[in-house]
Amino acid sequence: MPVNYATPAPEALFPVAGVRLGTAEAGIRKKDRRDLTLIEFAPGSRAAGVFTQNRFCAAPVTVCREHLATDGGIRALVINTGIANAATGEQGLRAARDTCAAVAKLMGCESREVLPFSTGVILEHLPVERLIAGLPAAQADLAADHWHAAAHAIMTTDTVAKAASRRIAGADCQVTVTGISKGAGMIRPNMATMLGFVATDAGIAPALLQKLAKDAADASFNCITVDGDTSTNDSFVVISTGASGCMIDSESSSHWPAVREAVIGVAQELAQAIVRDGEGATKFITVKVGAGGTADECRLVAYAIGHSPLVKTAFFASDPNLGRILAAIGYAGIGDLDAERVKVWLGSGVGNDFDEVLVSESGGRAASYREEDGARIMKEAEITVRVDLGRGAAGATVWTCDFSYDYVKINADYRS
Amino acid sequence: MPVNYATPAPEALFPVAGVRLGTAEAGIRKKDRRDLTLIEFAPGSRAAGVFTQNRFCAAPVTVCREHLATDGGIRALVINTGIANAATGEQGLRAARDTCAAVAKLMGCESREVLPFSTGVILEHLPVERLIAGLPAAQADLAADHWHAAAHAIMTTDTVAKAASRRIAGADCQVTVTGISKGAGMIRPNMATMLGFVATDAGIAPALLQKLAKDAADASFNCITVDGDTSTNDSFVVISTGASGCMIDSESSSHWPAVREAVIGVAQELAQAIVRDGEGATKFITVKVGAGGTADECRLVAYAIGHSPLVKTAFFASDPNLGRILAAIGYAGIGDLDAERVKVWLGSGVGNDFDEVLVSESGGRAASYREEDGARIMKEAEITVRVDLGRGAAGATVWTCDFSYDYVKINADYRS
Repeated sequence: MPVNYATPAPEALFPVAGVRLGTAEAGIRKKDRRDLTLIEFAPGSRAAGVFTQNRFCAAPVTVCREHLATDGGIRALVINTGIANAATGEQGLRAARDTCAAVAKLMGCESREVLPFSTGVILEHLPVERLIAGLPAAQADLAADHWHAAAHAIMTTDTVAKAASRRIAGADCQVTVTGISKGAGMIRPNMATMLGFVATDAGIAPALLQKLAKDAADASFNCITVDGDTSTNDSFVVISTGASGCMIDSESSSHWPAVREAVIGVAQELAQAIVRDGEGATKFITVKVGAGGTADECRLVAYAIGHSPLVKTAFFASDPNLGRILAAIGYAGIGDLDAERVKVWLGSGVGNDFDEVLVSESGGRAASYREEDGARIMKEAEITVRVDLGRGAAGATVWTCDFSYDYVKINADYRS
Repeated sequence: MPVNYATPAPEALFPVAGVRLGTAEAGIRKKDRRDLTLIEFAPGSRAAGVFTQNRFCAAPVTVCREHLATDGGIRALVINTGIANAATGEQGLRAARDTCAAVAKLMGCESREVLPFSTGVILEHLPVERLIAGLPAAQADLAADHWHAAAHAIMTTDTVAKAASRRIAGADCQVTVTGISKGAGMIRPNMATMLGFVATDAGIAPALLQKLAKDAADASFNCITVDGDTSTNDSFVVISTGASGCMIDSESSSHWPAVREAVIGVAQELAQAIVRDGEGATKFITVKVGAGGTADECRLVAYAIGHSPLVKTAFFASDPNLGRILAAIGYAGIGDLDAERVKVWLGSGVGNDFDEVLVSESGGRAASYREEDGARIMKEAEITVRVDLGRGAAGATVWTCDFSYDYVKINADYRS
């Protein structure tokens, strides 16, 4: 059960002009499930992506990078679940390239205009013949309003499909931004995410699109962690079709601020949905670290808290065992951190109802802190840990979840 | 249940000349358990220690550092369980100093000749009056053959007491090395361990003793991880009483190699016992990374494998889901790692019965690898993951355990 998240209804996912989606059952690893997704883009569409930094990156990630480097347009994404096609050597690269060639042939475009994505078990070979055999059915299914079905078809251990959509109506044009994502475990993106796809019918100049993809990833998928494991397949791609007629050539374009905000907002919704559906998650935790010397050191601290199995099990137990948070701050890696200057708050709620308690200051428990205040907040499903490092003005936010029996169960059972 | 570990029998823990140990019930946090330990050393004894790098280090760690810096002798260790006296500010420091003063008064020595240690819950204040009130009973209990009882009295979430002992009989003198340790969770020592105490009746010159403490920690407690959480209280101390009459003034002393090896050997046994008794552990995993460019990069990779919740849950499930190991190698942080050159083996057994299987090479699954071979080894309780990075001649070893339901249960329930 995800924490306060439900897949938007199909009608809440606005079609993006120039984009059609189709899904099919290819039998990649299991029968009777839609495990193949094809997303088609109108001629003239552009894409920009950010990908995993894992040195065992998957074959499709390598092929995506090659195809994006040709700087041409983009006509299709092809996504399979079941097998990640990672740590599969030369055979894996061939499989990813053969997949793109088959899509290109079906759609009458170039291989380099197709980006492949895989997710699932690592170290097993992709049954590329079955994948290719499934493509005509996916093509036949293409429709502009199939975002909901595509969000379902890219799921693996996810318990809910993840999607978000926004519409911006300006004076002279209307722009839509819609995206989907998947991921629940092996989540600690490093410059990217598991799989995230956001499309807009605004036309965005290539250099600006690349910057937008990076900025959106940094503000969303690069701020989440479930278990600290950076996947081999993390990929986040933003596609701009230009089919709305709204063209953005530079940052001074009047439409840019609203489109940028919409893309980043959709990416954040999708990233947070991954944490809310984190394997075994029962709580959604926001870790905000402020008053740091640099954003990097704030991220170190936020991730130390977000990764600590002891902190995460305490959240699962609703136990205000807050010394574990201090321990994580202390070992995060800031060598000259002055523990005396650190302050920690626990909070929950929104807006005027935000209920926040000072837990620690001056190197120890805050004089005003009462155990029952901590216990009250720890019972909530959405909790904010706020840390003030007392070193400067930089900040960073990380979203994470708790660590439950079900995390172990899911990951001990996966594959079987 | 620890993995292949049982506390040595009392008679297997050889008394160390010049050392007596006593325990008592002080009621620090719970009733009816021996939670206070006093260890007394003969006049002329010396100590050297290494301590946690956590910036929220506990008050007793600060006081230990101060007292060791005075470069005087050592007459006693005082150890309490139940409350860690960490993140307790000025009040915590006073509590640790008052404890040392009370021990000094009882024993007729200086406060600076007493080292204090605490382990237990963070962020709660030590009931120092109850601790001090328990000291006379601990003193009355002092005896040379109470190592076994002391090993029990320093336990917290440990399920077994941890101790090791060796005797070296030279031509002209006999030296004994005996030690105890505790720890099961919040275990990822950084230059130290939870609590480890090793005493020898060899007399070792101060500079040499300090080097020995560091070398022994680096070869033992600094090679283990249970959950990646570096504690606020990690402390490892080596005490040399000199009461055997065997004096070591320099590394060229004829006794040095044997004594050094015995101290390091005892430290390794104690460190491995902590992993074998890791919270919820059902398997003991040795991660050996070789052919690295530097020992540091090998440690990065070994710890990435040792910390990955996905790798650890796969071991718990006896599932040869080995792609997770490759993923961890890939994200460990070696930016220019060539995945094509990495080799990974899984092994189990000892000596001539060591059964090892090549799992991965050339960026993917080894051609010779069969799933049933991986499954056979994953069923064992002691497993070695061997990684060859193909970059040089450096190496590093890390010992860790798997990640089970019981880890979550223990840490969700702790304190309650």
